[in-house]
Amino acid sequence: MIKSPICELLGIEYPVFQGGMAWIADGNLAAAVSNGGGLGIIAAGNAPASYVKEQIGVARSLTDKPFGVNVMLMSPAADEVAAVVAEEKVPVVTTGAGNPTKYMKLWREAGVKVIPIVPSVSMAKLMTRLGASAVIAEGCESGGHIGELTTMVLVPLICDATPLPVIAAGGIADGREGAAAFMLGACGIQMGTRFLSAVECPIHPTYKEKVIKANDLCTMVTGKRLGHPVRSLRTPFARRFYKAEYSDMSDEELDSLGVGALRLAVKEGDVENGTFLCGQVAALVNKVQPAAEIVKEIMDDTERVLNGASEWVK
Amino acid sequence: MIKSPICELLGIEYPVFQGGMAWIADGNLAAAVSNGGGLGIIAAGNAPASYVKEQIGVARSLTDKPFGVNVMLMSPAADEVAAVVAEEKVPVVTTGAGNPTKYMKLWREAGVKVIPIVPSVSMAKLMTRLGASAVIAEGCESGGHIGELTTMVLVPLICDATPLPVIAAGGIADGREGAAAFMLGACGIQMGTRFLSAVECPIHPTYKEKVIKANDLCTMVTGKRLGHPVRSLRTPFARRFYKAEYSDMSDEELDSLGVGALRLAVKEGDVENGTFLCGQVAALVNKVQPAAEIVKEIMDDTERVLNGASEWVK
Repeated sequence: MIKSPICELLGIEYPVFQGGMAWIADGNLAAAVSNGGGLGIIAAGNAPASYVKEQIGVARSLTDKPFGVNVMLMSPAADEVAAVVAEEKVPVVTTGAGNPTKYMKLWREAGVKVIPIVPSVSMAKLMTRLGASAVIAEGCESGGHIGELTTMVLVPLICDATPLPVIAAGGIADGREGAAAFMLGACGIQMGTRFLSAVECPIHPTYKEKVIKANDLCTMVTGKRLGHPVRSLRTPFARRFYKAEYSDMSDEELDSLGVGALRLAVKEGDVENGTFLCGQVAALVNKVQPAAEIVKEIMDDTERVLNGASEWVK
Repeated sequence: MIKSPICELLGIEYPVFQGGMAWIADGNLAAAVSNGGGLGIIAAGNAPASYVKEQIGVARSLTDKPFGVNVMLMSPAADEVAAVVAEEKVPVVTTGAGNPTKYMKLWREAGVKVIPIVPSVSMAKLMTRLGASAVIAEGCESGGHIGELTTMVLVPLICDATPLPVIAAGGIADGREGAAAFMLGACGIQMGTRFLSAVECPIHPTYKEKVIKANDLCTMVTGKRLGHPVRSLRTPFARRFYKAEYSDMSDEELDSLGVGALRLAVKEGDVENGTFLCGQVAALVNKVQPAAEIVKEIMDDTERVLNGASEWVK
């Protein structure tokens, strides 16, 4: 059994977070992960506050264990969602795609533990000063919005930059990467892509199948020209978008090309026009399982690999 | 003391390779690393065969331990360099930036152990079939020519794809990443950027200083539009090149923009016009040391971290 300061801090059994995947991570998935002993997280994405409030209700109806909400800071509804998180006194809030400074006081006063995703040393230091409870160091192998640094480099750098507990994210799907994360200095892991294959994950069957069948070169990064790079499966749509980035298309046109593409993937499994957000590690995700089984399995595997570490030393 | 099958296979003391950095890794640096118990590697880069032969002579005059030559497969001199490697019966050859199939027979018949850098599962399988002795799984956090996958994802995928020993490269500079590499399934590590700071590394003092002072967001990737992405320090030249990739400049013009930029960095320390190849992990490289001390220190640190792994399990 792996015990970590993050378990005591949050009152969870296993140091495993489920990533807040926009359009995907709902109250049902979050509750399944939390009931399995990890930390389930509802993704707000670009959704209105009413959706987030509803999903918090769903999670509460299914579990009495701690769970979180992920606030996507670029969302037009971010202010209202931030307020709901505080009103509902959600146990944990994670943040992505930006700087959550303006909400820190509100959340902390409501007793919400704030765990921002930090893509750089300077952001880790700022969040530490502002009273974050922990930070998530997410490498650019992850799906969705990505930063510059890989997990291998980012995690030790963030550990050197803050005394807070560090959760490693990006590129983790089995016990080998789980154990590697602890060696890098993390005291917990967050997985998104591995939970795409959860029974409770509400994505279109085509999406789930594409993740399960993905090979090593299955993803690509688009949106770099616009300053908001995103990792997704290498679909016809992603290829078209990538090509358009190097064309004379205006930034506005390019931006509008992506509108609605996430919904088309998640809800309709549209492989021609949808954006299937996905991490590189999909190549290591090979079966559909209940979320609780995923939590238990990754921890058992990680424990086994960690226990074997000293065998290298003679 | 960490013992690994790669040590027995190559007759080296520590499972540490020094990356074959073009224009940089000469016979003197390679000998210093090999004398320290690791595997020093002479980089052929785009240099003519006569240079490679000369550097093999330098290495042999300074060490009687095994060393290697890295053949950059895109080099116009690759055929002649490959022949020199066979004639000279260099103990080990590593290959980068391409597919070394056409040289495998020549090298194996000369008794040269072939250890290709593999950026994908399919290349690892092909090299296994063709009789490679081991493979290097190099993640895209590394400096110089890069692939798509990060070390965290690539290493376990390559380990699943081949029964050969796997050396992890990319993003490794201290014992935390060293230990993580072993957890991912590797039985050795290769470092390039960490050896940029070696006393024996013949780069311009400005280059060495820039690596030592580098922070977390110090590198960027250019050349993606041309299909040959390269990671280097975020210099004025790298920024200009990146901007030009999104302009209407022709591919030919873009390509010619980079000619000579490597030499300007290595030999003249020209921060305005040089390309300073460098991995993301430069942020963890903070001092100038003899190469042998680097080899010993990374192994001692890795051993210490591996020995602590089971403390996570209660």
